[in-house]
Amino acid sequence: MREGYTVAVVGAGLVGDRIVAELRRRDFPLKELRVLARTARRATLAGEEFEVGVAEPEAFDGVDIAFFAGTEGEKGAAVQLAGEAISRGAVVIDNGSDFRMDPEVPLVVPEVNAGAAKDHNGLIANGNCSTIQMVVTLAPLAREFGIEKVIVSTYQAVSGSGRGGVEALEDGREGVYPKPIDRNAIPLIGGVGDDGYTSEETKMRLETRKIMGLPDLEVFATAVRIPVHTGHSESVYVELGREATLDEVVEALRSAPGVTFSGDADDFPTPLEAAGDPNTFVGRVRVEGNVAQYWCVSDNLLKGAATNAVQIAEELVGVRV
Amino acid sequence: MREGYTVAVVGAGLVGDRIVAELRRRDFPLKELRVLARTARRATLAGEEFEVGVAEPEAFDGVDIAFFAGTEGEKGAAVQLAGEAISRGAVVIDNGSDFRMDPEVPLVVPEVNAGAAKDHNGLIANGNCSTIQMVVTLAPLAREFGIEKVIVSTYQAVSGSGRGGVEALEDGREGVYPKPIDRNAIPLIGGVGDDGYTSEETKMRLETRKIMGLPDLEVFATAVRIPVHTGHSESVYVELGREATLDEVVEALRSAPGVTFSGDADDFPTPLEAAGDPNTFVGRVRVEGNVAQYWCVSDNLLKGAATNAVQIAEELVGVRV
Repeated sequence: MREGYTVAVVGAGLVGDRIVAELRRRDFPLKELRVLARTARRATLAGEEFEVGVAEPEAFDGVDIAFFAGTEGEKGAAVQLAGEAISRGAVVIDNGSDFRMDPEVPLVVPEVNAGAAKDHNGLIANGNCSTIQMVVTLAPLAREFGIEKVIVSTYQAVSGSGRGGVEALEDGREGVYPKPIDRNAIPLIGGVGDDGYTSEETKMRLETRKIMGLPDLEVFATAVRIPVHTGHSESVYVELGREATLDEVVEALRSAPGVTFSGDADDFPTPLEAAGDPNTFVGRVRVEGNVAQYWCVSDNLLKGAATNAVQIAEELVGVRV
Repeated sequence: MREGYTVAVVGAGLVGDRIVAELRRRDFPLKELRVLARTARRATLAGEEFEVGVAEPEAFDGVDIAFFAGTEGEKGAAVQLAGEAISRGAVVIDNGSDFRMDPEVPLVVPEVNAGAAKDHNGLIANGNCSTIQMVVTLAPLAREFGIEKVIVSTYQAVSGSGRGGVEALEDGREGVYPKPIDRNAIPLIGGVGDDGYTSEETKMRLETRKIMGLPDLEVFATAVRIPVHTGHSESVYVELGREATLDEVVEALRSAPGVTFSGDADDFPTPLEAAGDPNTFVGRVRVEGNVAQYWCVSDNLLKGAATNAVQIAEELVGVRV
């Protein structure tokens, strides 16, 4: 391990902010930290002042690791610039969706498939926010019991749409969502494909299969936006590979890496409590035969984006916090 | 059919208000309309001034039909008074949950099992709000394809908890919900049983089986409160008795009584739009093999309570609007 790395964060939105915060909080070995965006400006990220540089090819000279924040609405930065960064010697960790399903690109959630991070060609993809927290909770069940079918309905926060989502909720900003989000629920995240699924729902199916290495896993997702700031929630139904008891399922979840189990008796996690925490919270566990159901909540900007990305970088450089 | 009926509405909360509104809107043949509550007072229901009487046995003298509004938190009125009303010649239509699973009591959603209303011993139960809108949408699928398994996650409005729920959302009133509801999601509606399911989730399983006459139907529900005023939404996954095409499923839903189909292309219903309408809205239909998924939304105070109750009364007296 070297003494410190030159790291670039591309994107000064909510996810860029949280990547800077997580690099600091987890004490990632930094030699230099650059923030890049479409235009140069002064900006505050995670309470720290930055002279934001322009995200152009030369800005990646000397960079060891480049995080592309790539939230919804900021697509394309990685498509345009990842190759330039890689050719200059950087490893790119991309939070956007452009490369996730590329068979040459590892798609990594370290609690599930950390080893895949080593096998890259310069680019590693971060999973979709809704997918990451789900696979963190499915992985221990798959290890212990096997899993055959997953049916999930999401309750997603507006910060998944970046600052525009927060403004749509708080100020009624138009153009971000197809209908008002305050005091409402919008069952449409992303565009609709020919099969009727939204892009968010298709991501949850395909990314889950890839990350878990289960190409035949049945996944049926319905993705819904609700008037919550930060913290995605999910109602998960899983058919296990064998019958299990409640105690067995709880024990598998309670001991899983990255999981905070808060589901004894009628306790349960909510997004207001999960926001700001890098773990995925699980509660409301019910088991009948080979069917397990639970509720999981995670900060979509942290484990759903920034924390997972920084964990991938830690895998690369061989540090663990 | 007689010229008009003497009707009592017991409960002057949100559901009582909507029962009065629906009796007027649907032009139910009334001779007299009494509103009864715990204490006598003047009150405005559906824009109309009432001298609210005390709900005591003698208040039911001469009543033909008594609606017990019985929302959450107002339990017990039917348990205490339904017998008195029945012994005085009234038929009781109870919106509460006390008698729904009594094998002697019909549990009726007219679009699904109207005939059951005739076979009563003085008391007919109205279904749980979340259950009613689900069975309205499941019934056409059961008729056309058969149904074997239902997995549902709900997105329920605070008005399901009466005025207290609305105050919890708007004014942060404590004691209504176990955690703050504004900008949050609470996956716990009702008490938790030994099996880990909440009473709301168990109602959705047992009432669905009874209303649909399918005692072996598999139903797995997760019931969640979200910061919406009025209009429950549901993400429904159904395993049909045979493979079907998208067109077949859409046609079955589109032509179903009580259903407004608003799901062509990327259109979809939301609670803000469904509130105030007595129908159940369906959209986001997806079909793969024998699996159908959709999103349904209905006004929990109307079809989920008042409209359904007044429809039951119409069945009794032989009017259809």
